[in-house]
Amino acid sequence: MAPTRDFLTPDVRTQEVNRPSSDYLDVRTPLRLDSGRTLNAYRIAYKTYGALNADKSNAILVTHALTGDQYVASHHPVTGKPGWWETLVGPGKPIDTDRFFVICPNVLGGCMGSTGPASINPDTDKPWGLDFPVITVGDMVNAQVPLIDHFGIDQLFCAIGGSMGGMQVLAWAARHRHRVFSAVPIATAAWHSSQNIAFHEVGRQAVMADPEWSQGRYLELGKEPRNGLAVARMAAHITYLSEEALQRKFGRNLQNLAAKSFSFNADFQVESYLRHQGSTFVDRFDANSYLYITRAIDYFDLAAEHGDVLANAFKDTKTRFCVVSFTSDWLYPTRESREIVQALNAVAANVSFVEIDSDKGHDAFLLEEPEMFATISGFINAGAARRGLKPARSG
Amino acid sequence: MAPTRDFLTPDVRTQEVNRPSSDYLDVRTPLRLDSGRTLNAYRIAYKTYGALNADKSNAILVTHALTGDQYVASHHPVTGKPGWWETLVGPGKPIDTDRFFVICPNVLGGCMGSTGPASINPDTDKPWGLDFPVITVGDMVNAQVPLIDHFGIDQLFCAIGGSMGGMQVLAWAARHRHRVFSAVPIATAAWHSSQNIAFHEVGRQAVMADPEWSQGRYLELGKEPRNGLAVARMAAHITYLSEEALQRKFGRNLQNLAAKSFSFNADFQVESYLRHQGSTFVDRFDANSYLYITRAIDYFDLAAEHGDVLANAFKDTKTRFCVVSFTSDWLYPTRESREIVQALNAVAANVSFVEIDSDKGHDAFLLEEPEMFATISGFINAGAARRGLKPARSG
Repeated sequence: MAPTRDFLTPDVRTQEVNRPSSDYLDVRTPLRLDSGRTLNAYRIAYKTYGALNADKSNAILVTHALTGDQYVASHHPVTGKPGWWETLVGPGKPIDTDRFFVICPNVLGGCMGSTGPASINPDTDKPWGLDFPVITVGDMVNAQVPLIDHFGIDQLFCAIGGSMGGMQVLAWAARHRHRVFSAVPIATAAWHSSQNIAFHEVGRQAVMADPEWSQGRYLELGKEPRNGLAVARMAAHITYLSEEALQRKFGRNLQNLAAKSFSFNADFQVESYLRHQGSTFVDRFDANSYLYITRAIDYFDLAAEHGDVLANAFKDTKTRFCVVSFTSDWLYPTRESREIVQALNAVAANVSFVEIDSDKGHDAFLLEEPEMFATISGFINAGAARRGLKPARSG
Repeated sequence: MAPTRDFLTPDVRTQEVNRPSSDYLDVRTPLRLDSGRTLNAYRIAYKTYGALNADKSNAILVTHALTGDQYVASHHPVTGKPGWWETLVGPGKPIDTDRFFVICPNVLGGCMGSTGPASINPDTDKPWGLDFPVITVGDMVNAQVPLIDHFGIDQLFCAIGGSMGGMQVLAWAARHRHRVFSAVPIATAAWHSSQNIAFHEVGRQAVMADPEWSQGRYLELGKEPRNGLAVARMAAHITYLSEEALQRKFGRNLQNLAAKSFSFNADFQVESYLRHQGSTFVDRFDANSYLYITRAIDYFDLAAEHGDVLANAFKDTKTRFCVVSFTSDWLYPTRESREIVQALNAVAANVSFVEIDSDKGHDAFLLEEPEMFATISGFINAGAARRGLKPARSG
């Protein structure tokens, strides 16, 4: 049943930033960041599903993408919409919460309760804004370690995520290899390409061009760079879809019109759709979080962290990998997944690789993709048998 | 030798809008637009190169792309830079101005002297702004007809252009078929795809999100939506290059830095490059022109104008066509050129088609591409022989 509270008001969003309706862990051990700066204390907001078994061997960490959050399999408290991966995670789903204990944290730098630029900086009692340190995907992962410790979990049964979630999976496998029994990086890459940095930079420039952004101090000034963030989202959204999917879904169809309006209205359905994507996004996301998280992705380069040899990131790994890509994903094309697979092969890692035929582009990983579900089910069940977990309840 | 005047000042640009330093033709015959509206009078600014022969059979019309202009083979009066297609057009070049009379008009809706939204509306004595009628590629072409008449040219020897220039070439061939002996549409399409409309819409929203845009009235208010237009250009510029070209040219190289800055500065060369593309563009281009011209491209759909059968656009054509595409062009991929070729084949037109192997993306048509030069030379020379034009001077 959908919650009855009001959604999509700025108040609700501000409340989620500072008093999340999900669980959270306040970490008081300082976190040394890749930048060299230190966060003395921080919060990780998270959701869990299912139950941790007695020997704490059935935990699956789900890591989210750029604009995702901890609400992987339950209603979002700001939008009221279903969880972003309910197709995959839930009772009887490929990631079966009757069997596994699923943990999904909001990333450091996010805006759904984990510490980020919208959170209150304890030193000033004002939102961090641009005083928040620039973080990396590795920092996000390091910040999640105390959460796993909190549950007394020595080794995650699996870390799984798509897009930036996949980068976190790779960073977990590289930085905390003994703590990851299996890893499923989906629709992702070991480094962010020049073109992808370019698209992120367009988005950041769109946000920063909005006068309401106010050098990042909009929250304390009671402003909101809605237009800039909407433009950023629109540009990014194009990269999440394939040209084929756009053409099939919208083509050159006109929106509620018998003929072209000869104006700058949203004549074409694709324009109307994009505008809707932009405006609904700004209702739920913080503009500075968008800057910080895109920056973290740009900085991601697992090879560079290991002497420019990607294989070194996985040296002596015992983790079992399942790498998944989609044929029509042009944000993280299959060849970038292949590089991961080749690096894993170079260190004789246990890796399976599946390229899934889909015309839905990068977003395929969030959608109804039976072949992806079957791949993940198969990999998880085989891993569970290997790990000695009880099989799923029959029937 | 470079001119000695000042460049890149708003004054110079305003001057070029209303008192172009190139030739121009003031047309007093009303132009009925595709929207149903009428322009009672308008100006087409243009450059010519070479000399028209006695029987007026050696004229080549060069049509420009979205942000191009009439300065195809001579210095630009605002930027001071060389002409945008000097590689192709000039004495001894593939389009040899010792042999051909080259006409290059600024499009209707442009901002380099042809009537557009930045021009003074004679009814109000203020810049047109959004009162300017929304135009189509077909309108641009119809507006060029009086210029060809002005020179007494019955039939152009050739119409050639890339990108939106190629759309104009197709529109010339469809709307004024008897006036085009040969046609070279390069890196273009007979209709604008959903993804391309989406990218244009992002650009327009970026411009319109800039408060300086002031509902399009920025010129009369002494404002300028520089930030919005720069973001629009940055997003568009990514689509002009290939991922490979970006990766080869910039990769993840840092800009003048030994290490990442952990800030939102332009750490990566590709960021710095994009910002430069944005800021130099706004120095030379009018934001409303950008809105109008992108809209015209979105509206372009030659099949829809002909009962949804593209071949009908070319029925009974006598024009000789040479269609050119580039392997790495993802804005107008080769399959869209093939659709043009198939339509031409369906009406038994004289058509040759060359897909050029290049990793430079859409912008390849503006660059040093020997195979493109050879293709165009060969096609033009064969056409000239057929047309009975004198061969080029030997030597």
